[in-house]
Amino acid sequence: MSATSSAEPSASTVDAIKEKARRLSILSMMATTAAGSGHPTSCMSAAELMAGIFFHAMKFDVKDPNSNDSDRFVLSKGHAAPVLYAALAEAGVFPISRLMTLREFSSELEGHPTPLIHGVDAATGSLGQGLSVGAGLAIGARLDKSPTRVYVLLGDGEMAEGQIWEAAEFAGHYKLDNLTVIADVNALGQSEPTMYQHDMETYRRKFESEGFATEVIDGHDVSAVLAALDRAKATKGRPQAIVARTVKGHGVSFCAGKEKWHGKAFSKDELATALKEIGGAPVVVPPDPGTSYVRKSIPKPPDFPALAAPEYEVGKPVATREAYGFALKRLGAVNPHVVAISGDVKNSTFSDMFGNAYPDHFFQGYIAEQNLVSAAVGLAARGKVPFADTFACFLSRAYDNVRMAAISRSNINLCGSHCGVSIGEDGPSQMALEDLAMFRAIHGSAVFYPSDAISTERLTETMARRAGINYLRTSRPKTAILYTKDEKFPVPGFKVPRQSAQDKVTVIGAGITVHEALKAADELKSKGTAIRVIDLYCVKPIDGKALAEQIAATGGKLVTVEDHWPEGGVGEAVLGALAQAGVSPSKYRMLAVRDMPHSGKPDELVDAFGISARHIAAAVREIA
Amino acid sequence: MSATSSAEPSASTVDAIKEKARRLSILSMMATTAAGSGHPTSCMSAAELMAGIFFHAMKFDVKDPNSNDSDRFVLSKGHAAPVLYAALAEAGVFPISRLMTLREFSSELEGHPTPLIHGVDAATGSLGQGLSVGAGLAIGARLDKSPTRVYVLLGDGEMAEGQIWEAAEFAGHYKLDNLTVIADVNALGQSEPTMYQHDMETYRRKFESEGFATEVIDGHDVSAVLAALDRAKATKGRPQAIVARTVKGHGVSFCAGKEKWHGKAFSKDELATALKEIGGAPVVVPPDPGTSYVRKSIPKPPDFPALAAPEYEVGKPVATREAYGFALKRLGAVNPHVVAISGDVKNSTFSDMFGNAYPDHFFQGYIAEQNLVSAAVGLAARGKVPFADTFACFLSRAYDNVRMAAISRSNINLCGSHCGVSIGEDGPSQMALEDLAMFRAIHGSAVFYPSDAISTERLTETMARRAGINYLRTSRPKTAILYTKDEKFPVPGFKVPRQSAQDKVTVIGAGITVHEALKAADELKSKGTAIRVIDLYCVKPIDGKALAEQIAATGGKLVTVEDHWPEGGVGEAVLGALAQAGVSPSKYRMLAVRDMPHSGKPDELVDAFGISARHIAAAVREIA
Repeated sequence: MSATSSAEPSASTVDAIKEKARRLSILSMMATTAAGSGHPTSCMSAAELMAGIFFHAMKFDVKDPNSNDSDRFVLSKGHAAPVLYAALAEAGVFPISRLMTLREFSSELEGHPTPLIHGVDAATGSLGQGLSVGAGLAIGARLDKSPTRVYVLLGDGEMAEGQIWEAAEFAGHYKLDNLTVIADVNALGQSEPTMYQHDMETYRRKFESEGFATEVIDGHDVSAVLAALDRAKATKGRPQAIVARTVKGHGVSFCAGKEKWHGKAFSKDELATALKEIGGAPVVVPPDPGTSYVRKSIPKPPDFPALAAPEYEVGKPVATREAYGFALKRLGAVNPHVVAISGDVKNSTFSDMFGNAYPDHFFQGYIAEQNLVSAAVGLAARGKVPFADTFACFLSRAYDNVRMAAISRSNINLCGSHCGVSIGEDGPSQMALEDLAMFRAIHGSAVFYPSDAISTERLTETMARRAGINYLRTSRPKTAILYTKDEKFPVPGFKVPRQSAQDKVTVIGAGITVHEALKAADELKSKGTAIRVIDLYCVKPIDGKALAEQIAATGGKLVTVEDHWPEGGVGEAVLGALAQAGVSPSKYRMLAVRDMPHSGKPDELVDAFGISARHIAAAVREIA
Repeated sequence: MSATSSAEPSASTVDAIKEKARRLSILSMMATTAAGSGHPTSCMSAAELMAGIFFHAMKFDVKDPNSNDSDRFVLSKGHAAPVLYAALAEAGVFPISRLMTLREFSSELEGHPTPLIHGVDAATGSLGQGLSVGAGLAIGARLDKSPTRVYVLLGDGEMAEGQIWEAAEFAGHYKLDNLTVIADVNALGQSEPTMYQHDMETYRRKFESEGFATEVIDGHDVSAVLAALDRAKATKGRPQAIVARTVKGHGVSFCAGKEKWHGKAFSKDELATALKEIGGAPVVVPPDPGTSYVRKSIPKPPDFPALAAPEYEVGKPVATREAYGFALKRLGAVNPHVVAISGDVKNSTFSDMFGNAYPDHFFQGYIAEQNLVSAAVGLAARGKVPFADTFACFLSRAYDNVRMAAISRSNINLCGSHCGVSIGEDGPSQMALEDLAMFRAIHGSAVFYPSDAISTERLTETMARRAGINYLRTSRPKTAILYTKDEKFPVPGFKVPRQSAQDKVTVIGAGITVHEALKAADELKSKGTAIRVIDLYCVKPIDGKALAEQIAATGGKLVTVEDHWPEGGVGEAVLGALAQAGVSPSKYRMLAVRDMPHSGKPDELVDAFGISARHIAAAVREIA
């Protein structure tokens, strides 16, 4: 696996890699035929490239290819999974017999790669994300002062994805010279030829304009592939791009360069024809004994010493977005793995506090949210604890990236500020009103929506310890401190900042609506009606039984109130959790933002859009 | 407003435009100071550009600037809204007094532009989307054989967004020579200088590499601005890019080119200092009488003749994704406004049927979902009826674009295929499991999830008639025809394909789980238990009262079952709708996909992940 590079690869090296390429191509065809589905022609265009990358360029520990000292590979064109699996098998990471279990129910070798496979850092299959992951891995390696290199294989169809160019710009800007991109330009997309087909010079110009040391090669000329990889490895100061002209379905005349072969596995007869044409020594694959090679332990975030209690001056309101800034900075003092990236809003989300204290661990993501999230996935795969931030509404730009992060079993932390109508005058383009629904519908996520600075700080620390996708929703306005410095905020959990034995109705809010509910509680109390106020700082997961006990105390009478649309947020989360605890409210009102908001002062909007103390009190009176 | 262009703009023209620019700058400052918030320095860098665009280049009907014959303008850098409003006011679209109501609660002049303002086609404010909108407008104009031109003003911070380059590639590929992009390169982002600052050549290369006729100018040299706009207008065969070197906060020395001025309105004193420095005749703004100039009617999709009933062979299963293809093609025969764009998956989503029949109305979006959706918004603004398609999971790549489309009050139709675990071997990267939550949490959306080909065709037709964001979720597997050709599918609505007077439990499914529920119904019936099966083909909106009547018939015993995560989908939608009708299930089981799926055969996965007939029957037995 180690590369012995000299000025020109030796003839024996070239022959050995050619043979590897032949085997990778054949194994890809065999695996997809056995599976009855898959993308053999997308694998065949990449065979020489993969052979060069895995058997000449990369150095990695076959027994632990995800180790920090191993070179890393990201298959951005994830549908070519079989050729990656074939390379890993040929390298000895698992037996080649395993390839014949491709796409089977019990096999770790899924249709698209996931980190349940040794040697895979992040799930791919949604195109255009792998270069960002590679950039994150490269930054992580640099922070670790590790000599490891990162290789990313792109397809050409996916280079239409804007994210590829966000990532390229980011990599060029940060001069990630430990990152080599190899583009498999086979000219054919899924449904028709790609936009640029074999216009190699356009691709060269694109990468050069992002600051990459770029060359164009014949992707089936092994000598050229190896020489290019060697030159890339020797390049300092800039990431490298090897743009390879290839043929989809290369090596087999019935499909080479022909349309309508995307995603088509060969029939048994077609496979036989292909093997005959390719010739060479038969590739013998023994029967698979059925042992899984699933990667059993994907690392959790590393432990770190507990933070001291957050200290806030009683009576002085603090915005939760600002508390996040304080928390991140304090985290940075005790947890050297924390890395922050911001989408050009560090002064609004307050990650600049961390950035000023730990400039080597802070990265400017600029206005490019897809790259922001996928780069965080790359960082996490190297054991960093990433915190990425932007306005909550702009995280919707990265929803597919968050989705893929969950399939990647990634441990990333996302902070979205400026949620809801309570941001005021900027108006709806800057108001997140769907983000609770978004992040709840992510597998294994936790969704935190603190109402005060103390809880914000505690939950930020919790995020750094918790595996999976963690989302923190922060608000723009300053709000009162509700909790004392030694209070804990378990997950799942909620707080009950107002209760009595005479409570008539339970009101569940989060974030700013907790404060509105407390105002309503005061007003109702002055007129003789007591209500219980629950702060649902943890919107997911929810302990439905514990919540059910609270509303039982008010005879099942419930109001939920949120700075969010009615769909998929606090209200529906509570109904779902109660229902799954076998309980329903006896009387219920859901307060949420129902009309399209517009500009206005925060207080005007909170009231006009139905979620202020006035509306809460009215809803309580309706059902009390 | 019309341009009288000659080789060089006359001195009097230049002077007039300079004066307009001065006024636009001043009005932007005055408006934001009055509002107490906003982005004056972002407006000041664009003043000469906006003056040239609005008062030299564009021809539009002041009384109806959104008319199809008017040139169109998209402010992609939406936070510069005040300078757009100032230009519209100076042009006479509404009185300049209105500018002093900027960001007020009752004003149509919001913090970021929306189509509630005459002359605005799409809401902006989430950066990087405007060029796609412009491309859609330009394509619409070309389809109409209209001479109108489209102008898009970009900021430089937003050129970090990959979507800008998706759009540029798309515009270059389709040779949209009626599209002129003007880039306001002021070198300063929100939190720090942009990546490229004033490296104008990099921007030039980027646009040139996408096939734009590109030039670099001094954005404050009015002569140069006007000459560049003239040359752009005269260019045939390629879109044009005018990359303007500008200064953020130009014209006022305390902020010109200085950091930390992003998003800061001037105080009254600062404004006075600025006005003094700029000099010239005072800009007199009368008090505003309070008359709103909100655009009252945003056009609905145009009417068209009813389609004949869909015809399907009884007993022959058809995938709903294929039925969409048939429906779109039949729609194209009677509705000349329909335009389809696909994200390189037309052969999987079956929009290729429409594409082959109406090639002039079909556009290849390639693998670039953000551009796919925002271009559809541009098309809709010109009265087209866009249908954009990709795999449902990849629509998550465009969630921010869908969010902005709702703020744009846009009439777009999105089809997402290959939903859920039922796609099989491709695995989770290709499985949409969050899209019902996503699309439900979009203001004014309709979410359709048909279970058979007949309902798919009917709902596709309904989408073409319905204003707002319409989402159609289609499935990969072939499924039985459940309905007869003359059945109707109202919105809201549901079907009850199985019921009796002895029903013990109501089972609500959608898409493939309707078929699973029917299988379960057969099995339970054979053992003496009758269940009611509801097909919730319309997941949003839901008539909670009508649904409540159904579950009342089974004593409140309810099972919901969906090929989707538990959060935000069918189950929570039903609970929410019932709760708002004052009703709860007496006993409830929510079946959904709870674990991270993997590859496997469709039937294996549907069963392994808890949503098959077997699980439905077991849940029924638990609560019957």
